[in-house]
Amino acid sequence: MSRDKSGEAKQRHPHAGTPKGFRDYFGTEVTERKTMLDKVAEVYHRYGFDPLETSAIETVEALGKFLPDVERPNEGMFAWQNEDTDWLALRYDLTAPLARVAAQYRNDLPSPYRRYAMGPVWRNEKPGPGRFRQFYQCDADTVGAPSIAADAEICAMLSDALETVGIQRGEYLVRMNNRKVLNGVMEMAGVLDPSEPSRYDVERGIVLRAIDKIDRLGEGGVRALLGEGRRDESGDFTKGAGLSPDQAEVVISFMAARRDTETKTLTALRDLVGASIIGAKGIAELETIAELLDHQGYGADRIVIDPGVVRGLGYYTGPVFEAELTFEILDEKGRKRQFGSVAGGGRYDDLVKRFTGQSVPSTGVSIGVDRLLAALQTKKRAGSAIAGPIVVTVMDRDRMADYMSMVAELRNTGLRAEVYLGNPKNFGNQLKYADKRGSPVAIIQGENEAKKGVVILKDLILGAQIAENATLEEWKDRPAQVEVPRADLVAAVRKMLVQ
Amino acid sequence: MSRDKSGEAKQRHPHAGTPKGFRDYFGTEVTERKTMLDKVAEVYHRYGFDPLETSAIETVEALGKFLPDVERPNEGMFAWQNEDTDWLALRYDLTAPLARVAAQYRNDLPSPYRRYAMGPVWRNEKPGPGRFRQFYQCDADTVGAPSIAADAEICAMLSDALETVGIQRGEYLVRMNNRKVLNGVMEMAGVLDPSEPSRYDVERGIVLRAIDKIDRLGEGGVRALLGEGRRDESGDFTKGAGLSPDQAEVVISFMAARRDTETKTLTALRDLVGASIIGAKGIAELETIAELLDHQGYGADRIVIDPGVVRGLGYYTGPVFEAELTFEILDEKGRKRQFGSVAGGGRYDDLVKRFTGQSVPSTGVSIGVDRLLAALQTKKRAGSAIAGPIVVTVMDRDRMADYMSMVAELRNTGLRAEVYLGNPKNFGNQLKYADKRGSPVAIIQGENEAKKGVVILKDLILGAQIAENATLEEWKDRPAQVEVPRADLVAAVRKMLVQ
Repeated sequence: MSRDKSGEAKQRHPHAGTPKGFRDYFGTEVTERKTMLDKVAEVYHRYGFDPLETSAIETVEALGKFLPDVERPNEGMFAWQNEDTDWLALRYDLTAPLARVAAQYRNDLPSPYRRYAMGPVWRNEKPGPGRFRQFYQCDADTVGAPSIAADAEICAMLSDALETVGIQRGEYLVRMNNRKVLNGVMEMAGVLDPSEPSRYDVERGIVLRAIDKIDRLGEGGVRALLGEGRRDESGDFTKGAGLSPDQAEVVISFMAARRDTETKTLTALRDLVGASIIGAKGIAELETIAELLDHQGYGADRIVIDPGVVRGLGYYTGPVFEAELTFEILDEKGRKRQFGSVAGGGRYDDLVKRFTGQSVPSTGVSIGVDRLLAALQTKKRAGSAIAGPIVVTVMDRDRMADYMSMVAELRNTGLRAEVYLGNPKNFGNQLKYADKRGSPVAIIQGENEAKKGVVILKDLILGAQIAENATLEEWKDRPAQVEVPRADLVAAVRKMLVQ
Repeated sequence: MSRDKSGEAKQRHPHAGTPKGFRDYFGTEVTERKTMLDKVAEVYHRYGFDPLETSAIETVEALGKFLPDVERPNEGMFAWQNEDTDWLALRYDLTAPLARVAAQYRNDLPSPYRRYAMGPVWRNEKPGPGRFRQFYQCDADTVGAPSIAADAEICAMLSDALETVGIQRGEYLVRMNNRKVLNGVMEMAGVLDPSEPSRYDVERGIVLRAIDKIDRLGEGGVRALLGEGRRDESGDFTKGAGLSPDQAEVVISFMAARRDTETKTLTALRDLVGASIIGAKGIAELETIAELLDHQGYGADRIVIDPGVVRGLGYYTGPVFEAELTFEILDEKGRKRQFGSVAGGGRYDDLVKRFTGQSVPSTGVSIGVDRLLAALQTKKRAGSAIAGPIVVTVMDRDRMADYMSMVAELRNTGLRAEVYLGNPKNFGNQLKYADKRGSPVAIIQGENEAKKGVVILKDLILGAQIAENATLEEWKDRPAQVEVPRADLVAAVRKMLVQ
């Protein structure tokens, strides 16, 4: 209890706010996302994927972060111990629950199992500008499909999904790489010995982390990390992989191996790692995917082989893909830059193995829902902005039944309409309300109008235009306010709406 | 680590299962619910309600369960202390987050604020058969509307929503009661003194809990609780409100005051509590709502005054309503019973007061999503069962590009189609897969067919019928398998689908 200046006891009220890193979505923010996800779901459906909705809560054990010795499990999750027994957690992605489902229902699900999932995930991470601790993911995966055709299908589907939500052909590119080619690179660079796979584990880890940082550190930074190591601006030193300049050159050349045609890119890759069995296999996979896609009409204007795609190469086991939007936007400092990545995925063959001990080859894609929606909003293609309702004002409190009947009539013909339900005393407040609601038309019927059997329709869109910038000429041609017989209400409103 | 019989170290795998009380939703289970909620949203939208999506996580403080002295907050929530500072929790309904939003954005939101919300909520309660710890709610509320017209609007909207999702007129009834009438009953029964409102607090609490148990205990049980008390089967004694038989009779008569017409019901209520100011006000409110609704065409065949609605009377402050489905279903023991309640709501005027100190009159409704969906499924009106995809089988692994092109052609005309992505060696497995997928048509093209430039279409629906019960006559008229030119693939599939 605190006391205010008057000395009276002042009750402490709870704080009305979301927890840090969470936010609310209002009106159009909800419907625009829903419209986009509905369109994506329609594409996934056509490709034979079935929806799956798992619960938000999983056991920590199933999510794959084992109960540690310490009191608190992995910091990246929201986790808690329930009823002093199970550790529970909110899912941090949609893949971990899929792995659990694929294991739990392995005797009942069709195999291969194509499923899509859409919904929020939670990360117990430090929030930042535009980075929230709850956000949507939208995934499609094929579980139990060893065929590289499954990867090709995912790429085609991703391309279709982007075009269906409103990204035009030429505005995006699905770029493919392959972890196996990288393994070939490792072999050629002397940090992978096929006869002794676990040797150079540490070095390979450093190489993986180094190439993942190419966007941030540039080629020079990566070279340093591939070699002796790198000292950053703060003076901290990161130990490198210890590769010689020649060895490092193999890795750098790999990332820069994209040429202007698929054939040339494949040749460049073969020159680099063709001598490695695993590398050659990876190149053959990329070639097959490109052929399969080409045959269906998905050419290099949509899906390309690009060894520069390095994100996620450490996680995936085969083909990796990333969808980038290629148009430019202005960043927060007003500089032009490419919009960048909106989706990514790849093959991960050990998804279910944790549960069953058996390898289940799988591949999938995850669309960054908020990023893609932001892109559509930038291009003004998000659609489904919520239209404001027609507002029937209340001039005479005792005639509420009449006003509600007007609203019911309008609604019954499919129009969005509401009666003003606040205190009707101040008519100005009613018009302010209609304005805040984005209402296109307000309907007014006072005592006089009721006696005459008429209603007044106020064109609020035109009214706003006149107030802002319309000329007197326009005003004369189209009255911002008309009086019509009560019986013509619906027809007159419809007429005003299409003007 | 445990050791199996062979004595080898056997790795312990994590258990592949949801936490207790949670479940997964597959395919049609997801789309049926989505279809239903989309239809409800369309109705809410037409009534001028805007969507709101809050995050799943709120502070415990905002949810209204204050941090207790003990280590663990309210058991009914999933709550945990994050980073040793805030107590966070998963929302247990959609009303508490609305209260927080209404307080947080009170200067920005239109007033009245009509919003709807749909999504999962979580309860840390003992799960039971059909009772899960995550389930959907679907709410619509009007915040900041003192007018009783707001309650009438909610009732009309609920009626429209039920009919729109597929409950036919005559199969449901929205029943209304009013907490104020109950307060009048309390007054007449001598447990409410308007000049000293806090007196008899304990007795009124017992009365409220007693009438809430009418379904379970019957009139006799409630009478006992209104009087001296009740001993249950186990021998436990629950203290009663101490009302005399005459006082108790007032309460019992109230619950049984529904007559065959609205007018008679209102007369019966006036006879009971007309002498109480608050009681008379409650009756007038019910009468006004009924009039407003009648004027819009919502008669007693859809919305009725029924003092027998007692659920939630302790929580709400004014009108209370409940939607019941009136058709019969068979319970688990094969006995006929009414389907019962699928939605409920009412007026609660102190929603936002906790946060701001100011009373904000509000009213709303919550649809029990799982109950309503179950009703639609019972009536076979849930719709949106997912149709199985056309399956293109793989006879020749090297010709995957051809099979994928067939699939792409089918999909490009809007059909749902997929290529078999499992190991193609065993053709029987491919047909089993198609069967499991509910596929209507399988497409086959082996080496011979490819040379001849044809494909074989297998009608799997007819095939299943023949296997089950079709006569030879039907078989002759309509072949379960046809060979068509490759160029006619799409047309032939479409023809087979409409048969």
